[in-house]
Amino acid sequence: MINQLSIIGVGLIGGSLALALKKAGYCREIVGVGRNAERLNAACKAGIIDRGETDFKNGVGDADIILIATPLDIYQSVFEQIKNHVSADAVITDAGSAKGCVVADAEKIFGRLPANLVPGHPIAGNEKSGYEASIADLYVNRRVVLTPADSTDPQAVEKVKAMWEAAGACVEITSVEHHDRVLAATSHLPHLLAFGLVDSLARQQDGEEMFRFAAGGFRDFTRIAASDPIMWRDICLRNRDAIVTALDNYESDLSELHAAIKNGDGDKLVKIFSRAKKARDRFSF
Amino acid sequence: MINQLSIIGVGLIGGSLALALKKAGYCREIVGVGRNAERLNAACKAGIIDRGETDFKNGVGDADIILIATPLDIYQSVFEQIKNHVSADAVITDAGSAKGCVVADAEKIFGRLPANLVPGHPIAGNEKSGYEASIADLYVNRRVVLTPADSTDPQAVEKVKAMWEAAGACVEITSVEHHDRVLAATSHLPHLLAFGLVDSLARQQDGEEMFRFAAGGFRDFTRIAASDPIMWRDICLRNRDAIVTALDNYESDLSELHAAIKNGDGDKLVKIFSRAKKARDRFSF
Repeated sequence: MINQLSIIGVGLIGGSLALALKKAGYCREIVGVGRNAERLNAACKAGIIDRGETDFKNGVGDADIILIATPLDIYQSVFEQIKNHVSADAVITDAGSAKGCVVADAEKIFGRLPANLVPGHPIAGNEKSGYEASIADLYVNRRVVLTPADSTDPQAVEKVKAMWEAAGACVEITSVEHHDRVLAATSHLPHLLAFGLVDSLARQQDGEEMFRFAAGGFRDFTRIAASDPIMWRDICLRNRDAIVTALDNYESDLSELHAAIKNGDGDKLVKIFSRAKKARDRFSF
Repeated sequence: MINQLSIIGVGLIGGSLALALKKAGYCREIVGVGRNAERLNAACKAGIIDRGETDFKNGVGDADIILIATPLDIYQSVFEQIKNHVSADAVITDAGSAKGCVVADAEKIFGRLPANLVPGHPIAGNEKSGYEASIADLYVNRRVVLTPADSTDPQAVEKVKAMWEAAGACVEITSVEHHDRVLAATSHLPHLLAFGLVDSLARQQDGEEMFRFAAGGFRDFTRIAASDPIMWRDICLRNRDAIVTALDNYESDLSELHAAIKNGDGDKLVKIFSRAKKARDRFSF
């Protein structure tokens, strides 16, 4: 149980954590911090946060934990604005989909990586956005990855871990580099492939008609292409190196598959498909 | 209502049609035809078919409609075996995922495309296979595409259409070429991308660990990679030209996206992602 949690950016991710922690009775007060007073008020009325603040001092000054859940491209400005208001024993964490850029932004603004900053990433969410989409059980049995540095205060890590566990999540600790590489391959890459496929079809002359014929597999496969374009632009720009590597690997494997089809190499196709099916069946989560 | 439907190949597709038509009271008798007596008996006992036959003469001789629902790679042999046993007023149709190859196989075995052959494709199914996976409502509100030629008997087309409608499906008529091109883009391509992604990850050194971190989007995205490898080999080999064209288009669009990420071109990324989201939202079926 903590006294005050301040969430900067009350969207699906921040809002769902707020709901989960309210349900768990984990915070005395949950404060939403943002630029849009109207939306903060609405989130208050919807029972997602207890109080909304557009002033950063009022918003984070008394917080025990500050969660940054904004788009990645404004982290520098967020760090800049909270820098002089965070109390000495407060913990800062975040929910961004890439972690290397968060460390770089923090180092730039704070001069070094603050010992009380615990970069984090809840691996949950869906194609919706906005606090209206918040659900209390979004994190139940989902993985939250924390990527503290050697210099990070272990107690700060424990506090963030306990908070996510109170929301029902399983917390794992890994390195920034490992997080960014694994997420590029298992989350960022699939999103790009789905965006690419839907766009590729939509641009064809009879694109509209194409979609009419699409079967259930296509629906599941492309659901993630309905995700927020701005958020995904930011992820692409902020986890660029790892994503480019993942795309390089994928394109090279895909061209092997392409060649097997072109050459009518049935044995090779069965080998690739069986290996994939086996891997997918083993992880039918 | 018809007297006898013979289904050659009682798997998920044939079995589900059998269940649907039984529920609708559409056939006096449903006969399963195949090579494996044991599995045919089991399908009988499971109430999916009324009778199993390993002899093609007994299996199709008295049928009003014969549905071929086997893998695409044995169609020539199936045509060969039913050729002399199909009665003059019987209709032959099929459920294969590609149609150009069916026409080619039929022309090869029958000398020309029989007027009573109506190539068809129910755009339904899932990653499971075998009659055990059959469900009576698999085709409800799903699209079935028929691709008759100019020389096809209109009455034969009507009979096949009525049968699928009795199973709850919406029937569309289009050309063989159009079907194969659209399905390559909306079904075959997504399956290949998913197989490719899962295989690409599984082959990496820390592949097992990668999957552990995968989020919900990845699960949906890769579900189709659990599909039957042999079936997908056949589809790749039998709809090769259309699939190669679809892959060519996709790879070229993906490399555009890849370049935009590499160059940090945020505007281009937003443009691509927004166009995709708009298309996906419009078809949120």
